Amino acid sequence: SRELTMVNETQHTCSASSSSKSDGGSSSGSESSKDSSRCSTPVLDAERHERLREKMRRRQDSGDRWFSLEFFPPRTANAAVNLISRFDRMGAGGPLFIDVTWHPAGDPGSDKETSSMIIANTAVNYCGLETILHMTCCNQTKDDITGHLQKAKRLGLKNIMALRGDPAGEEWEEEVDGFNYAVDLVKHIRNEFDDYFDICVAGYPKGHPEAESYESDLKHLKEKVLAGADFIITQLFFRSETFIKFMKDCQAIGITCPIIPGIFPIQGYHSLRQLVKLSKLEVPQEIKDVIEPIKDNDAAIRNYGVELAVSMCRELLDSGMVHGLHFYTLNREVATTEVLKRLGLWKEDPRRPLPWAVSAHPKRRVEDVRPIFWASRPKSYIYRTQEWDDFPNGRWGNSSSPAFGELKDYYLFYLKSKSPREELLKMWGEELTCEESVFEVFTCYISGEPNKNGHKVTCMPWNDDPLATETNLLKEQLEKVNRRGILTINSQPNINGKPSTDPIVGWGPSGGYVFQKAYLEFFTSNEIVTALLKVLKKYESRVNYHIVNVKGQNITNAPDLQPNAVTWGIFPGREIIQPTVVDPVSFLSWKDEAFALWIEQWAKLYEEESPSRMIIQYIHDNYYLVNLVDNDFPLENCLWQVVDDTFELLNSPTQ
Amino acid sequence: SRELTMVNETQHTCSASSSSKSDGGSSSGSESSKDSSRCSTPVLDAERHERLREKMRRRQDSGDRWFSLEFFPPRTANAAVNLISRFDRMGAGGPLFIDVTWHPAGDPGSDKETSSMIIANTAVNYCGLETILHMTCCNQTKDDITGHLQKAKRLGLKNIMALRGDPAGEEWEEEVDGFNYAVDLVKHIRNEFDDYFDICVAGYPKGHPEAESYESDLKHLKEKVLAGADFIITQLFFRSETFIKFMKDCQAIGITCPIIPGIFPIQGYHSLRQLVKLSKLEVPQEIKDVIEPIKDNDAAIRNYGVELAVSMCRELLDSGMVHGLHFYTLNREVATTEVLKRLGLWKEDPRRPLPWAVSAHPKRRVEDVRPIFWASRPKSYIYRTQEWDDFPNGRWGNSSSPAFGELKDYYLFYLKSKSPREELLKMWGEELTCEESVFEVFTCYISGEPNKNGHKVTCMPWNDDPLATETNLLKEQLEKVNRRGILTINSQPNINGKPSTDPIVGWGPSGGYVFQKAYLEFFTSNEIVTALLKVLKKYESRVNYHIVNVKGQNITNAPDLQPNAVTWGIFPGREIIQPTVVDPVSFLSWKDEAFALWIEQWAKLYEEESPSRMIIQYIHDNYYLVNLVDNDFPLENCLWQVVDDTFELLNSPTQ
Repeated sequence: SRELTMVNETQHTCSASSSSKSDGGSSSGSESSKDSSRCSTPVLDAERHERLREKMRRRQDSGDRWFSLEFFPPRTANAAVNLISRFDRMGAGGPLFIDVTWHPAGDPGSDKETSSMIIANTAVNYCGLETILHMTCCNQTKDDITGHLQKAKRLGLKNIMALRGDPAGEEWEEEVDGFNYAVDLVKHIRNEFDDYFDICVAGYPKGHPEAESYESDLKHLKEKVLAGADFIITQLFFRSETFIKFMKDCQAIGITCPIIPGIFPIQGYHSLRQLVKLSKLEVPQEIKDVIEPIKDNDAAIRNYGVELAVSMCRELLDSGMVHGLHFYTLNREVATTEVLKRLGLWKEDPRRPLPWAVSAHPKRRVEDVRPIFWASRPKSYIYRTQEWDDFPNGRWGNSSSPAFGELKDYYLFYLKSKSPREELLKMWGEELTCEESVFEVFTCYISGEPNKNGHKVTCMPWNDDPLATETNLLKEQLEKVNRRGILTINSQPNINGKPSTDPIVGWGPSGGYVFQKAYLEFFTSNEIVTALLKVLKKYESRVNYHIVNVKGQNITNAPDLQPNAVTWGIFPGREIIQPTVVDPVSFLSWKDEAFALWIEQWAKLYEEESPSRMIIQYIHDNYYLVNLVDNDFPLENCLWQVVDDTFELLNSPTQ
Repeated sequence: SRELTMVNETQHTCSASSSSKSDGGSSSGSESSKDSSRCSTPVLDAERHERLREKMRRRQDSGDRWFSLEFFPPRTANAAVNLISRFDRMGAGGPLFIDVTWHPAGDPGSDKETSSMIIANTAVNYCGLETILHMTCCNQTKDDITGHLQKAKRLGLKNIMALRGDPAGEEWEEEVDGFNYAVDLVKHIRNEFDDYFDICVAGYPKGHPEAESYESDLKHLKEKVLAGADFIITQLFFRSETFIKFMKDCQAIGITCPIIPGIFPIQGYHSLRQLVKLSKLEVPQEIKDVIEPIKDNDAAIRNYGVELAVSMCRELLDSGMVHGLHFYTLNREVATTEVLKRLGLWKEDPRRPLPWAVSAHPKRRVEDVRPIFWASRPKSYIYRTQEWDDFPNGRWGNSSSPAFGELKDYYLFYLKSKSPREELLKMWGEELTCEESVFEVFTCYISGEPNKNGHKVTCMPWNDDPLATETNLLKEQLEKVNRRGILTINSQPNINGKPSTDPIVGWGPSGGYVFQKAYLEFFTSNEIVTALLKVLKKYESRVNYHIVNVKGQNITNAPDLQPNAVTWGIFPGREIIQPTVVDPVSFLSWKDEAFALWIEQWAKLYEEESPSRMIIQYIHDNYYLVNLVDNDFPLENCLWQVVDDTFELLNSPTQ
């Protein structure tokens, strides 16, 4: 009938099992309910569950343009700390992936903090970035390579850039049965790891410098693709025509996988010379003509480089052949960020899929609930839960919640403060004279005002970053209470159904509504806790509290050790997402860490037996860690009233 | 220190593992996180997870008085249907438990719909009532008894009233190695089933009629308790002093378990005489004196019986020795309900722990999510999921959602309509002439107005009960759309955070907030669906829809077969509860049932080949089942606008 045809035309297919669901001939409902393979997670962010090649495909299909960033491993431990914060900052711009190069001389597969393997591991697990690990094969045994690949897999890396690498000596000869070309590595990965890894290979728009000819190099590239490579990233080039010709030539010989142009924004005279020497490329005369006269003016060269890169990128994108751009950053931020911003590819307001930054480890892809306690220390949380086999999905209580790992390695480079000791001393005080001088540090961190020596306090042992935008909503009250010895380390305002696109408290896809219960967590003295407990009796049915000291003396009114959802979101067509909870059980693990940070990060800045150190030690030994939740999220946050009542009680004559 | 002591005094213990959490000496947080046995469910209703003896203890501790109700199995299948609706009605008053007597002559352990076993099974599983199954032991083999107990356990029964039963012949003799006394049955249950069952035994305030003496009977009672009985229910009595003396005598010989007085409201002259004969009790002269003169006036006797029971119950409760009252209902409602209401024990507004009635089967005690589709057919849902090993807890998507059982037995007594065929024909039409006469039936059901033959439509094939209070909120609009062929079978209004104590839409403990997305489910013609689909394009991001016909042709915009939470609640100190979902997968199982009900419940009322039957058959074959969810719960429900737009499109000249 006419109507039925029309109905079938408008039929939507379900991506999970479209064949069984859209099949008009199937008449048994119970049969289809057996067949369907249901996702176990609400999949707020579809990309989170896709492999890199699928993400590329999705972007290509939807016409969303993207970029990626290449970094090399750092030389020193300090540089590693800096590189990780660069990952966090540049990750905020929304790269589709980053890649980390492989330096055979730098022990790239080792556990050193400067190895390619560990940097890539950190990017995936701690910074939540989709990451490609480079790997070269020449002069290495099959066992070495398999070992590296197994380790990469174990660490959660899913993508390998398969390269030949530079031969060790000048006179390189093929080894029989060895890995002589990148194609050997591609084949090896596919043989040994089946389809586990997405494989990227290098393309040379001008032909590989050692290739017999441009044409024979194209043939080699096709061999790599046929052997199982999923996509190609090109060597840098200086003119868009170079890439476009290369792309057409690739297509002409039947290469159909994505080919991503490698963009090198010129950032300085010397780095350009060095790169050109290494890559054996020739800089076009028109570029040399501009650069040579300004070669001592770094700013001028960088401006020119940005200009050049922007116009070349525009040509590439306008050609319609390019959907993504790959940037050789040389581990620098400014030029690449500038180019991306001018191209409109840098995400100014990256939507958060969840209130906290998700990890990209495949094991954690379903994770969508965390305790609120580690909100400012997500890397520590990831570290302490890295051995978990299952991650909470949908509900916290649903996971069997295995034990948290001990945090002993406070100086792991990715958990370490970005600020050196001298700077911390300037912020937190060269010399402490009393508990109140500690209150002052907390107050300055909240207010943003310089301390009495004129230094701004931009981080704390519990917060390595400046105050969250959201926390600014509470700034005035926080400042007031810190001044009086309620030393806050975590808080959130109550939210009664703001749009999920709200720039400050929003998260998740658009069309949803987000909610929060007001939360306040702080250290405070025994005296204040005693008064607080009296006050809390008045709020018994409204406020949940957990109060614990370093010895584990624990006071709570939480019913049956249940977690309390304090952030949740309602989205179209979904179950409810409740990504942060106040959980009485994990609070005791957090307590150990929160108290230890007084000593590890602060007290140890001072000499043993020094008065400053003893003040911190006293606080560590005697203060309580308190968390409060106001369950009545639609009403005005009562936690400030609780604190006011507490101070009033302390100041009353009978006290 | 002074403060620390104070802190310890105010310490709250956590019921789940109070020893580990309140232990001030425990210093390792990670250790306690390993130890804690976390409940896997939010436990909104603590009683739901307790066994009967624990519930009794909790009520006794909290001073909450309670009642229980005794029923006997029905003689006929029709009487079984009536008894089940009586369970539902009297269950609404909030009994702590009901019990079902055991009639050796009535094949009490069989699968017949009139057996004690099946009636008790229905009470537990389908009516959600805590239930005690009586069981007698004399004249039965050990294997028979074990078989009955195993079957009871399998069906989810957790409580047994262990009785001797009446010997078969006049001259009863003890059997060697047989079950001669209730105590033998108690011992057998404890031997074979350990602590699985809660065991109740009978107490005789006047002594068992066959006992040597009152004292020796008390000794037998103590033996039953020592053998493992958990509590005692007494035989009926006529004076509160009788019970109070008995209670004191029991305590004097060391019986400490709960003793529950059995209350028999006199309901008629003949039933009293029969009961007295069976129980060999003597009616006190002062009662006889009142009753004899009015023995032919049923109403007068019942009024007197109520009066008498109320004053005796008051005396019992006032004695301070009684926390619960057990009523011998004789399967009648009026007198017992009246007594309970006058005592203030009948719950006028029973709080709903969840929006739907929970089942009392121990396997289902964690269940807290169901698809909305079976909202008006909860017994069918329970029936179709009875083979599930796990029930959704916290989230629907989290369960592996095994297949729904087929619903073939439409005439299972507990799934059957309460109304006989003749009554249904009066409501739904002796003769249908066109589709519009079907629209009229739906419209009358919604409006509550009588149909053109003057009969009110109080049930429908998809709703055996009158309209839910909540649905009344939508009555006007529902009436309008049904009249035009949008044949609604399920709906709910949107709710944006009402208190959980709201009398109409509230559920769960107090102090929470409940939310709903607007929902509308209906059958409608191909023509209307075609227009509706065009209209829905305008609402694509706001409204989720599933549209399916009997052949399984299925049209939906649900993302990835995800369930959509349409009812949820936020409670103090809890994770979010989301008890109803619109689930695309189970919708296809529901679809089979919803379409089949047209034929099974309606078409089959008419002769084969009759025009009335063919009209229903036509609707069954050609209509679509549609469900719509408006995701924007904080805004005004747009589903009525969707329907209006659809009719407007149908009426527009171009159509």
